[in-house]
Order: sequence, then C-alpha cells, then structure tokens
Amino acid sequence: MNETRTEISSLGEFGLIEHLTKNIELQNASSIVGVGDDAAVIDHFGKQTVITTDLLVEGVHFDLMYTPLKHLGYKSVIVNLSDIYAMNATPTQIILGLGISNRFSVESMDEFYEGVYAACEKYGVDLVGGDTTSSQEGFIISVTAMGEVTPDKYVKRSTAQKGDLLCVSGDLGAAYLGLLFLEREKKIFMENPQIQPDLENESYVIGRMLKPEARKDIIEFFEKQEIMPSAMMDISDGLSSEILHICKQSNLGCVLYEEKIPVAEETKKAAFKFEIDPTACALSGGEDYELVFTVSQTDFDKLVTNEQISVVGYMTEPEQGATIITKGGSKHALTAQGWNHLKNSTE
Amino acid sequence: MNETRTEISSLGEFGLIEHLTKNIELQNASSIVGVGDDAAVIDHFGKQTVITTDLLVEGVHFDLMYTPLKHLGYKSVIVNLSDIYAMNATPTQIILGLGISNRFSVESMDEFYEGVYAACEKYGVDLVGGDTTSSQEGFIISVTAMGEVTPDKYVKRSTAQKGDLLCVSGDLGAAYLGLLFLEREKKIFMENPQIQPDLENESYVIGRMLKPEARKDIIEFFEKQEIMPSAMMDISDGLSSEILHICKQSNLGCVLYEEKIPVAEETKKAAFKFEIDPTACALSGGEDYELVFTVSQTDFDKLVTNEQISVVGYMTEPEQGATIITKGGSKHALTAQGWNHLKNSTE
Repeated sequence: MNETRTEISSLGEFGLIEHLTKNIELQNASSIVGVGDDAAVIDHFGKQTVITTDLLVEGVHFDLMYTPLKHLGYKSVIVNLSDIYAMNATPTQIILGLGISNRFSVESMDEFYEGVYAACEKYGVDLVGGDTTSSQEGFIISVTAMGEVTPDKYVKRSTAQKGDLLCVSGDLGAAYLGLLFLEREKKIFMENPQIQPDLENESYVIGRMLKPEARKDIIEFFEKQEIMPSAMMDISDGLSSEILHICKQSNLGCVLYEEKIPVAEETKKAAFKFEIDPTACALSGGEDYELVFTVSQTDFDKLVTNEQISVVGYMTEPEQGATIITKGGSKHALTAQGWNHLKNSTE
Repeated sequence: MNETRTEISSLGEFGLIEHLTKNIELQNASSIVGVGDDAAVIDHFGKQTVITTDLLVEGVHFDLMYTPLKHLGYKSVIVNLSDIYAMNATPTQIILGLGISNRFSVESMDEFYEGVYAACEKYGVDLVGGDTTSSQEGFIISVTAMGEVTPDKYVKRSTAQKGDLLCVSGDLGAAYLGLLFLEREKKIFMENPQIQPDLENESYVIGRMLKPEARKDIIEFFEKQEIMPSAMMDISDGLSSEILHICKQSNLGCVLYEEKIPVAEETKKAAFKFEIDPTACALSGGEDYELVFTVSQTDFDKLVTNEQISVVGYMTEPEQGATIITKGGSKHALTAQGWNHLKNSTE
C-alpha cells in the first residue's frame, strides 16, 4: 500500500474508470473500440473468436492478507488467458468487472491495475472494457478474455483418440504447496503478530501460487512444430480432475504413470516439510495453470524436443476406465479429490 | 420458491452446471462451441464482434426480498443486451459468471436460469459458457454479452454532430418509481409482516423495474429505414447522465426540451403519489434501458413514423453547454444527479 489514501468517492464512478484506464494503448489491430462506450468492438479478421470468463471472490478464491493486489490483478488475467490457450487460441482482449467496497482506496485500485496491465503487456492483450461497481464488503473480480483462432483449429476436451499420448506442460503441485505455506504463516501471524513470516526458501512454490503464468509458449511451440493436439484443457483443479474431464467427454479411458508426473524439486522439498505426498499435490492441488493435452503417437518425436512437455500416459478404450499406475507398480482408478469446493466451474 | 430444496453440494460443482445447462439448444450458427469447455468459440462470419459486461451484486444492484429470481435472471441478461443494441449491433451470445452462497438451493438456481433462458429465447441469444463459483454471502452475477455488427456500422457515443436531433425511445422514469414502490412496501412489511403488499395498481412502473426489455425493435427499425444514428447509448443511469456523456465524448452542447421528454401516464400518477417531479425521475432515475441517440435532421421524416421514438432536443456547439429548457421556458444547465452511487460504470 502507498501512504496516500484517496477515497474512490472523491473521483466518482466515471472519474475512477478514467483514472484507471487513461494510459491504455491498444496493442491489437483487432481492438476497434475499447474502454469508454456501451461495449467494445473487435474484428478478428476471418478468425474465430474464443471467449471465457472467471469470477473471483474475496474470501473464496483469494485472501488479501497474503495476496498483494498487484499479484492479484496479474493472476486474475492469467487464469483467463490460460483458458484461451487451452483452446489452442491466442488471447487478444480482456474486459474486467470489479466490485469494490469502500475499504479500498484509489491507490489500492492502482496497484491492482498495475498487475492487470503487466499481464496484458506480457501476453499482448488489450483491456477493452468493463464494469466497475460497488460491493458491500469483499472484492469481486470478473474477467472475460477473448482470443482468436484460425477457423476450426480450436482444440476441445472431447476429441481425444484411443492410443493418443497424454501429456502435460511444466511441473505440477507447486501452487498448492505455496498456498499451504501462506496459510500456515497467516495462522502464525494471527496468533502472534510479532512473528515475521518465514517464507524465504519457498519462493518457487509461493511464486507459483501468487504469480502463475499461462502457457503461451506451448501453443506457439505447437504452431511452429505443426502439432495439433487432439484434446486439451488447462489444469486449474488438479491433474486428476482434468484428465477425468477429457476421458469422460472423449468417452475414453487412460493410463497415467505416477512416475512420469513432473514435480519440481522445490515442490518435493516443500511437500516433505508438510509430510504430504507430492503426487497428491500434483493430482489434486490445482491452480497450476499448466496444460494437459493428448496428441497422436506420430507426434512423439516432435514433442520430446521440448523440455517443458512430459508424456505422462496414454488414452485407452473406455472400458478400461481412467487409471493410474503407481511408482510401486499397482493400478488404481483415478479419482478427483479437488481441495477447492465449488470452484472454476464450466471452464 | 418451490417446496423441494436440493442442496447444491449434493450435485457438486460440475453436476450443477450440467443440471442447469443440459437443455441448451444453440440458436445461432455463429455459436461453434458452447458450454462445457475451457472457452466458447464464436464465428461471426465477416462481422465485427461487440462485447460488454455487467456485474450485479446482491444488496447493491438488487434486493432478493422483492426481486423474484426468475425476473433477476431475465433482467441480468437484458441489461447487457441493451448495451449491445446501444452499439447498433445484434446480440448473439452470453456467458454467465455466478457466485452463489449455500443459502441458495438447486431449485432457486433453476428459477434464476428460467429467467436467463427466457431472455435468451426472446432475443435469439445463446448461453455459451460461464463460471459458477461459491460466494461467502450474497449472490453475484456477472454477465458478458457478445453481438455482431456489419463492419464499421457500430455507433459510438463520441460521434454526434452539431445540429443533429437528440432522440429517445419509449418512455422514461418508470423504473425508478417502480423501485420506490417496492422499497416502500418492503419497509412497511419489515415494520409489520401482517400487512400484505399493495402494488396492484402499479404494475406498469413495477414491471419496468423488475422486468425491463431491451430495444431490439429500434435497432431493427434503423436497419429497415436505413437510419444510421450518429451517436447512441442506452439509458441505465438516467437521461441527464447519458446525454452528458454524449455531449462530452462528442465535444458538443445540446438543448433538451423538458416538455418533449416522454413519460407514461402511469409514471406521472406514480410520481404524484410520491410527490416528486416525473421529469426528475426521467432525468435521474435510471434503469429504463431505453436508447438515447442522435440522428441527422434529414432523417426526421423517417423517425416520426415510429411512435416509439421521441425527438427531445438537438445538438449544439460545445460553447452552449448541455442545457434543458423547462416547461416554463427557462433555460438551465443539465446536471447528472444519479440516485445510484458508483454503479454501471464504463458501460
């Protein structure tokens, strides 16, 4: 927080919008009309438009006690861009709906927008509109992202094929452990505000929680290598839950190898401190915003050139069910045990 | 409310979505991929895409004590479609973000969706995606609407011309009076729950508040008559506020004639009961979801064929300012005195 506190009421509703959006420079030729009218106008020039939305509610999806507003602004954008990439599309615009209580100052909204603009700049996306309103208590964030895709090059969840390789990007489970550290330090602080947080050695997992990135690079790699995944989605609820979606919607089973699931060293160490199984964090932790996708076996040689991609299993007949083979060699049914109640819904 | 109460937790997050969206039949050829993936895919076939969003928060934008959930679902869609029409575009898709506390049952969500689907059907719009999440207390509704427009036929707020006629659709001020009645009956009920609400004679103004419509017909009239408004916006905050936006963004002044402002007989009677000026309700009441627009004087003959359109003034040099000429003939500066604090923002 800055030291100055300007009440939002001193600017008024339209003044606030003007203040927050005055420096916008549109980056995409497709952004025809941006902030400041009844609606934005987009021209995707012969491409198809991809659209997704996420609603983030204080106390449910984020805790401002340990989430800097700038990080929150950044992450609010990222979680939506991740959904656009998961369709094999390129994000181009976002619109932002905010519900703000009078607890927040203009300076705090500036911080939030700094994060929003940082994400927009990094991913080449334009903020083209929104709605700012009051809320009685908490902070409410609604982000809608649009993107574009060459006609019929989008990738759904329901089109995986038997025998396809099951792959994931990056590494999994870190964000959940980051959250565990933050929750632990919050608890300690609540009990004794004199104790300073001790999170120095956990910057990797905490960074994955507070400032996730979307896998733009993977989509660009697919395009360059002319790989067309047969099915894809992003990992927001945990690997198990997402794989089960692909299996169900594609009417297939799968074999997932525990030993192939990518988990970072930092994540393993962190899991050790909490005496929990890092595989469980990867399967059910969520919020990793990596991609899980299926590709034809013929693309294997291309895939292995990318260190950021791990082949973790393959798709089978539906009768075989969705299964995991543990490091010990035993086979189990894959089950979704998200740690997040009612969340992230249709996306 | 129905008599049965099914806990949302009994269906689970994905079960709830499936339950609420299982009967969707997409109406638009442009809706390529709908509910059930990371994002929806839209193909506007050579048209430009128009997009807008609104965030509605319980206790700020609606009071469930006198707002039936079905009406709320309907209205949540309408307020967004109104923004799309205000761009001279045709709405085609919506996506819906909902924050629901455990106060709500599956049956209550069914009621809300009934209203959403009724609006979608009436206006030929598809629900193509969304996000359903939990909220700690209130009900949060985020609607994003998309539409399409023939390239460069959209109408902004900033392009009115000096000498253009200033026009509005329908009649104004009714929704605000509807709200006053509902608030009054709520207060009486809170003080004495035995007294039944007495709203029978106020169905017009209450209907305008609880179940507004968007002016699809006006946009269709423009197309048929080949009228291209020079500037347009919808009336959500009150006529004054919207006219001031057009003046400011177009860098013009205006003359508005009080006697020309269309106010329904029912609205006048209702205003009389509250001993307030019906003109003030029209100027500052808001929530009418009519259109205010400017057109070239050469279109006057076409305009007068439509009883739903009133010419209320004209645009002037900016030096003249935005002015109103009262019924008594005196001239005043037009000022925005919305009754809604921090609301409806950039739209």
